[in-house]
Amino acid sequence: MAESLKRSDGLPPAMTRLVKELSRLPGIGEKTASRLAFNLLNRPRDQVIALAEALLEMKERVGLCTECLGLSDTPRCPVCSDSARDRELICVVEGPADLMAIERARSYNGLYHVLHGAISPLDGIGPDDIKISELLSRLENPGAVREVIIATNATVEGEATALYLAKILKPLGMRATRLARGLPAGGDLEYSDAATLSSALSGRRDL
Amino acid sequence: MAESLKRSDGLPPAMTRLVKELSRLPGIGEKTASRLAFNLLNRPRDQVIALAEALLEMKERVGLCTECLGLSDTPRCPVCSDSARDRELICVVEGPADLMAIERARSYNGLYHVLHGAISPLDGIGPDDIKISELLSRLENPGAVREVIIATNATVEGEATALYLAKILKPLGMRATRLARGLPAGGDLEYSDAATLSSALSGRRDL
Repeated sequence: MAESLKRSDGLPPAMTRLVKELSRLPGIGEKTASRLAFNLLNRPRDQVIALAEALLEMKERVGLCTECLGLSDTPRCPVCSDSARDRELICVVEGPADLMAIERARSYNGLYHVLHGAISPLDGIGPDDIKISELLSRLENPGAVREVIIATNATVEGEATALYLAKILKPLGMRATRLARGLPAGGDLEYSDAATLSSALSGRRDL
Repeated sequence: MAESLKRSDGLPPAMTRLVKELSRLPGIGEKTASRLAFNLLNRPRDQVIALAEALLEMKERVGLCTECLGLSDTPRCPVCSDSARDRELICVVEGPADLMAIERARSYNGLYHVLHGAISPLDGIGPDDIKISELLSRLENPGAVREVIIATNATVEGEATALYLAKILKPLGMRATRLARGLPAGGDLEYSDAATLSSALSGRRDL
């Protein structure tokens, strides 16, 4: 309260409001928010309008694909609608950003399934809080899918989710695989942590 | 071009556009922009609309005060319209953010003048590129102003601007003062730089 009184001294209310809205963004505190607001104030009018319109358009248009639950501005996303994709392969990821990362790698030609989270008992997130039942209903048709690649993060939550999925996929006679773990490209042995080195060792391959 | 083709694979165009607009902001690269965009996507609709409206409202309403050239959503800003302010005292600052900082300190009761920049020959910014002539015309009326406090930054550009202003204010018989330089509050001698310590010494005061 005292803070808002203080600030209203020097700033027009419209600036104060913009600073407040910007500082809701993750990683943006009040100082960064004012720096951004001053920068926007000095920008040409059409750039600021373009940003505002992009915000509204994103909220208006972007929804979830009915099939893979990835982001899409059409009922079915471009990946799911692409007839050149291998429909017998489903790659399970935690979020839409993970799907994007795999698409950028350009070495996967199957479909996706976005869980929108990972199992995390500490945060009270169980299997029913993420889109696992939606995945299971995609696998119902026998023979439609030959392999599920579990591409959750290499974190405690991601591993827990992968183990859970593997346990329910095995009885269905489905091949369930996990992304390989090891040294990242350009990785330096000297600076690798013990967990990475130990996965790199245990996952070693014949040359 | 290749980059935009790549990204359009995984992201709906409305998200790509938002990421592009966000990454124009200072200090926000493409990665941070996507993180912000995903965060905004998961926000309640009204919060995103509030941010977009704050942007538009800021651009619509906020202009410059006709007197001090500070930010204002009225022709004359609240400070300049305040009859309780000492109108014979003008504090000259580089930008609106500086005015705000002084207002927050709550120990100044005069008016302001915002230069919107500082003299910087290296960047091709001379005295005519900042609002110095507007300051001089405010000082034309003899006896209207008794002191000009030059509160430009303690940087090379700020100092150059202060020296330039002092040189043109002196012949007008105007008292021109400069903010004190020395140790900041809570400042530690051990970690102070030489320039700060040397100003603190030369500006020492009797106890």
